[in-house]
Amino acid sequence: MTTTTPANRPYPLNAWYVAALSSEVDGENLFSRTLLDTGVMIFRRQDGTAVALRDRCPHRFVPLSMGKRNGDSVVCLYHGLSFNCSGECDHNPHGNQHIPAAARIQSYPLVERYGFLWIWMGDETANPDDIPDYGPLVDGHPNGVGYTYMYRQCNYELINDNVMDLSHIDHLHGEIITTRGQLSPQTPAITDSEENVSARWEWQQTPALLILNQFLPAPDASARHFIEIHWSAPANIQLSVGCTQDDQSPLDLKHCVGQYDLHTCTPETATTTHYFFGTRRNHLEDDAEFNQMKIANMHEAFVTEDGPVVDAVQQEMGTNDLFGLKPVLLPSDIAAVKVRRRLAALIEKEQLPQ
Amino acid sequence: MTTTTPANRPYPLNAWYVAALSSEVDGENLFSRTLLDTGVMIFRRQDGTAVALRDRCPHRFVPLSMGKRNGDSVVCLYHGLSFNCSGECDHNPHGNQHIPAAARIQSYPLVERYGFLWIWMGDETANPDDIPDYGPLVDGHPNGVGYTYMYRQCNYELINDNVMDLSHIDHLHGEIITTRGQLSPQTPAITDSEENVSARWEWQQTPALLILNQFLPAPDASARHFIEIHWSAPANIQLSVGCTQDDQSPLDLKHCVGQYDLHTCTPETATTTHYFFGTRRNHLEDDAEFNQMKIANMHEAFVTEDGPVVDAVQQEMGTNDLFGLKPVLLPSDIAAVKVRRRLAALIEKEQLPQ
Amino acid sequence: MTTTTPANRPYPLNAWYVAALSSEVDGENLFSRTLLDTGVMIFRRQDGTAVALRDRCPHRFVPLSMGKRNGDSVVCLYHGLSFNCSGECDHNPHGNQHIPAAARIQSYPLVERYGFLWIWMGDETANPDDIPDYGPLVDGHPNGVGYTYMYRQCNYELINDNVMDLSHIDHLHGEIITTRGQLSPQTPAITDSEENVSARWEWQQTPALLILNQFLPAPDASARHFIEIHWSAPANIQLSVGCTQDDQSPLDLKHCVGQYDLHTCTPETATTTHYFFGTRRNHLEDDAEFNQMKIANMHEAFVTEDGPVVDAVQQEMGTNDLFGLKPVLLPSDIAAVKVRRRLAALIEKEQLPQ
Repeated sequence: MTTTTPANRPYPLNAWYVAALSSEVDGENLFSRTLLDTGVMIFRRQDGTAVALRDRCPHRFVPLSMGKRNGDSVVCLYHGLSFNCSGECDHNPHGNQHIPAAARIQSYPLVERYGFLWIWMGDETANPDDIPDYGPLVDGHPNGVGYTYMYRQCNYELINDNVMDLSHIDHLHGEIITTRGQLSPQTPAITDSEENVSARWEWQQTPALLILNQFLPAPDASARHFIEIHWSAPANIQLSVGCTQDDQSPLDLKHCVGQYDLHTCTPETATTTHYFFGTRRNHLEDDAEFNQMKIANMHEAFVTEDGPVVDAVQQEMGTNDLFGLKPVLLPSDIAAVKVRRRLAALIEKEQLPQ
Repeated sequence: MTTTTPANRPYPLNAWYVAALSSEVDGENLFSRTLLDTGVMIFRRQDGTAVALRDRCPHRFVPLSMGKRNGDSVVCLYHGLSFNCSGECDHNPHGNQHIPAAARIQSYPLVERYGFLWIWMGDETANPDDIPDYGPLVDGHPNGVGYTYMYRQCNYELINDNVMDLSHIDHLHGEIITTRGQLSPQTPAITDSEENVSARWEWQQTPALLILNQFLPAPDASARHFIEIHWSAPANIQLSVGCTQDDQSPLDLKHCVGQYDLHTCTPETATTTHYFFGTRRNHLEDDAEFNQMKIANMHEAFVTEDGPVVDAVQQEMGTNDLFGLKPVLLPSDIAAVKVRRRLAALIEKEQLPQ
Repeated sequence: MTTTTPANRPYPLNAWYVAALSSEVDGENLFSRTLLDTGVMIFRRQDGTAVALRDRCPHRFVPLSMGKRNGDSVVCLYHGLSFNCSGECDHNPHGNQHIPAAARIQSYPLVERYGFLWIWMGDETANPDDIPDYGPLVDGHPNGVGYTYMYRQCNYELINDNVMDLSHIDHLHGEIITTRGQLSPQTPAITDSEENVSARWEWQQTPALLILNQFLPAPDASARHFIEIHWSAPANIQLSVGCTQDDQSPLDLKHCVGQYDLHTCTPETATTTHYFFGTRRNHLEDDAEFNQMKIANMHEAFVTEDGPVVDAVQQEMGTNDLFGLKPVLLPSDIAAVKVRRRLAALIEKEQLPQ
């Protein structure tokens, strides 16, 4: 395995990434996850606020997450150095208890929003306002939103590619979410903005998407559909999908039966990825049991259908350099290619000598 | 692990290698195997002819063997590109269905002969006449021939070495095929030809080889034996072995109870090998049950006796450069060393700048 | 993984290392262990003397430990070459049975002492007198001494560090051997000599160490304790620990209830370690059942408490270069740092061009 170094890092550092689902970090335990090739410890202060610290004692490099909580501080398992939420050593039980100036650990800005914990690991100043607005996830009944986490053995850009080219749904996915060959014939409308790369498909299929058709007047009949995706750097993709059997209805989530999703990825390493997913539906919003079943089904589809493919692609490529392998690109790749070029520019800018 | 590159490839490319036993590739499924560091997909057309294609979609590098058959074409699981038996894209479901000129995959000459599928992966023109004549395998009753496949964690030349120096049978093998110390005292007769390196041993043992003695007039008595081997590049070794209790009988398969075997190896990578074996006997030829038992016993002997040794040697060497480790060579190594030198010359010739 | 080469070897070669516990090598089998990145075979001659040979046949590089004993010789499984205890080939069954001059394997000086088998793998002359005196281990009733072996996924210096800074006992260890926070406030007395780096702690705790308190007049009351450690190169640490409730008693093993331990490590590779431990107590010396229980408990404490921490540190460091990672050092690190500097000097001296 190639070691990731500042010079070959295939992801930008100065960005908000999801470190964990809110639900993954409880009020008691020290949560540990490798993010951007760095061990990070996350825990909640007694007031519930989550904090993120480098998961490494500066003394002898034991992961602090092996240690114990003491109020809002964390005590290293090995020699008992204690660190507060800001990463400052607040107790040294050794000798005269003098605390060395260097005894501090990196703390990372962490913001809890939209059901996720967002972390900033770059050297530039973090601004929470730079987290895009994913408000629709949390706007509504709590039973109307579901979250899940998946671990993948591939570079995060392969997951970006997967979501940016939704024509794959025609071919890869089974009954639950198949689009029955209707997306591939289209070249989706692509729009660029400073913040986003967006694409939109509209089509008709019979029956409608099986995750939605039971909420239509005539479940077995044809319906008009839309999907709209908006990528923002580095790996956040909002996806709205809906359908209607009203010929006059606009194709949007106000007028259709549908859902609003966020796919967001965080590199663990150059070739492994934390994949987070949130989804809110605009129907049967208060049904907790349905909610549970729906997120379980979507998780299953991602893990058994997309997952093996993106992992096999990584294995087969043996590199993260897609363009170096000279892929045969199709019009359906346009959005994914635009995203790759923007990421390449961001990464190059970060790695240029200042 | 060191990656195999054109410059350090420890095997020739321009050669016929066995890709699979005929019986491994059925009429329905897409068979996948890594050969010479390259993923290859093999399947049978509806007329039964087997074909071999690079197992990688040129669009997004998904192994095509994850996809589905459609007549004699294969449809990629990810985005539905279809490829015919020649590796040409014959359907693109995307946009206006235009097929990009580059949308083709490498196809490899594949010949089914002697119970094996032979593949040519080099850049020179393949000539099926260059497959040596292993006719004796298929000449006779179908119950008289058996085949098996083994996977080994070693470079293929260690298996060449193993078969080229049969004195190891005296020491390594258990009751079923032991030669009871009779081979080691001999320096076998070696003959060189343009195509082959050959060796021959003749000896007497009591009782005869246990895989043969029950077919002799006096199973517990002494018998005269012979083994003859013929190597041809890169890793094909024909082996004839037989015995007789008639003092006047010539030592050959026409006059002895015996069998004709083919050992043939194909590198998966520099340090892993596909090992194929076929064997035809000249006795009890129509007994299917005996045939089954015999191939199972030989498979077991290779896997439990030779296998752990060649794998341990690879592990201990930590390289494929046998001569670099300065082995103490014995007269019994002469045939194996000749084979190594011929292979080295073939490989060097291929890798020289043209 | 980085391969260990003479130029980056993180351990000295010219030193006595423990190859195995005496009890690990029986009178029948061929024992195999990788020591200092080299496969070594150890077995006992018929007179009980243990010998050590390179575990690699010079012919085809099969580990000789896969072979069979023949009296005091070892016969290679693959082609039957036989080697005597000095590593000389004493039988070649091939051809005219001539033994090539180069057919010999490296033999290593091996000394059985103090319940361990000590090996010398360097190129300088081995002198058994250089094995330090660990006589207290074997001085007394045989039921008063216990031994154990542990395998660790870390560089051996991390285990040196662990034992040289015993303040960790306050924090890492559970009830059985906790020192209840009494060591950390002290800066231990360090003494240097040509052969040793030593440290000593004295303290009072209530109750006394739980492995000792039941042998004191008042098990639940306070007791005065001492620990003394003496490191000698490369990775041998003698540790004496004891306690007393007699205010007038000197703090030493003659006057206290206590035990004498040897911690000694041998690198398997740059990042994996064989960890050997012997311990003799000065109380209940003839109780075999207690002895068994005591060594099992200490083994359990090392494996479940120290073990995961040293392995996690290795993983987190990703290198053996502790100082390169700029650790925040505490006064309690002084002894460990002295040991690291001495080892660095020894290693540098060996690797300098002569």
